[in-house]
Amino acid sequence: MSSGEKESQNLVPKAAAARLSLYLRHLESLRITGASTISSKELARALGVTAAQVRKDLGYFGQFGFPGIGYKIENLIVEIRKILGTDRIWNVALVGYGSLGAALFRYRGFEKQGFRISAIFDNNPAVIGQPVGGLLVKNITALAHAVAEGDISLGIMAVPAETAQEVADALVFAGISGIFNFAPAVLSLPENVAYVSIDLAVQLEQLSFHVKQLREDAPFEDPEQGI
Amino acid sequence: MSSGEKESQNLVPKAAAARLSLYLRHLESLRITGASTISSKELARALGVTAAQVRKDLGYFGQFGFPGIGYKIENLIVEIRKILGTDRIWNVALVGYGSLGAALFRYRGFEKQGFRISAIFDNNPAVIGQPVGGLLVKNITALAHAVAEGDISLGIMAVPAETAQEVADALVFAGISGIFNFAPAVLSLPENVAYVSIDLAVQLEQLSFHVKQLREDAPFEDPEQGI
Repeated sequence: MSSGEKESQNLVPKAAAARLSLYLRHLESLRITGASTISSKELARALGVTAAQVRKDLGYFGQFGFPGIGYKIENLIVEIRKILGTDRIWNVALVGYGSLGAALFRYRGFEKQGFRISAIFDNNPAVIGQPVGGLLVKNITALAHAVAEGDISLGIMAVPAETAQEVADALVFAGISGIFNFAPAVLSLPENVAYVSIDLAVQLEQLSFHVKQLREDAPFEDPEQGI
Repeated sequence: MSSGEKESQNLVPKAAAARLSLYLRHLESLRITGASTISSKELARALGVTAAQVRKDLGYFGQFGFPGIGYKIENLIVEIRKILGTDRIWNVALVGYGSLGAALFRYRGFEKQGFRISAIFDNNPAVIGQPVGGLLVKNITALAHAVAEGDISLGIMAVPAETAQEVADALVFAGISGIFNFAPAVLSLPENVAYVSIDLAVQLEQLSFHVKQLREDAPFEDPEQGI
């Protein structure tokens, strides 16, 4: 049942991991309506995939269905949260308190899934020391100390491309396990540090590409990043 | 994610389209250093792919290399911008002027790539009419008129999940060709509307999943979304 029990040659495709998040969202919204069970077919229909895909995705992690019943919603929510690691609170360091950093700090969606921004860092003297929702923006030089003290394992980077690698190095040095990067830069990181990167302008560029392809009736794969 | 299998041998994989953006970023940064040519091998090394991959990605769109020279940087920048549709200015409507919407409006990366947020909409009376960087936040009811008047073809949605489908429907009705969605919701859209969606909490969830997999030494595909 636990994610640790899977066979070692069962590599989990990243699309399957991404769909787990979507299944979770849908199950959470169903729970609010009072539903208690769901079939793989219903779950599939809600997300525009096949029932076989749902069963395969979940099958990487264990057997969660009950014959003749389908999935018990509450149970499957618990199991998927375990798999994704969101059955716990993650303390997160936010580096960069410009307009994007400030928006990310205020973004309610993170806390709802167990991600708590518990320290904020910047290198701008005008911002350092500023009180923000119960925290004080700290000098980036205090990063390693704060990460160790605060049991912080994830970092969000909302810094310019020019300083991105330097900030990433500081996060790695501080002992962070995973980095969520918004800087439009390709980072070089050790293999034991997880890394998710979003370049917002690149995403918008993919959209204009897709619009162009649609207008030219050119063949393409749907670039939707619906994860 | 699943727009159905399209069966053309010229189908451009979405990963290739995403890499075009990365090639472009690297070429633009090289141009600043004064470089004028680059080999597929050098371009590949900078982005951590193989030279064969670079040639294949570009090969979907044409022959851009020169024998014995490689790629002419300035020329390849122009060509990739044409392919991505960023050889022109796109007028963009921003719907939702909360903290995320405000951050996206101030995000300099969009304008740099030719995306100009030229109209902002909200449904909150406290925000409607507010002057923002030379614009006034408009009532969402004015969307269709403003889109037609302002030659707007893309929409960015920074609205809550609860209103996302309604806003998407309004954008489609207004004649928008592509939607960049930040609402944590799966949207139902007509096939002729392009769609890129980012759920920030889901991305962070993918990061915690990756961290967990690394800690458990479990096999996984690198979830890096470096696009």
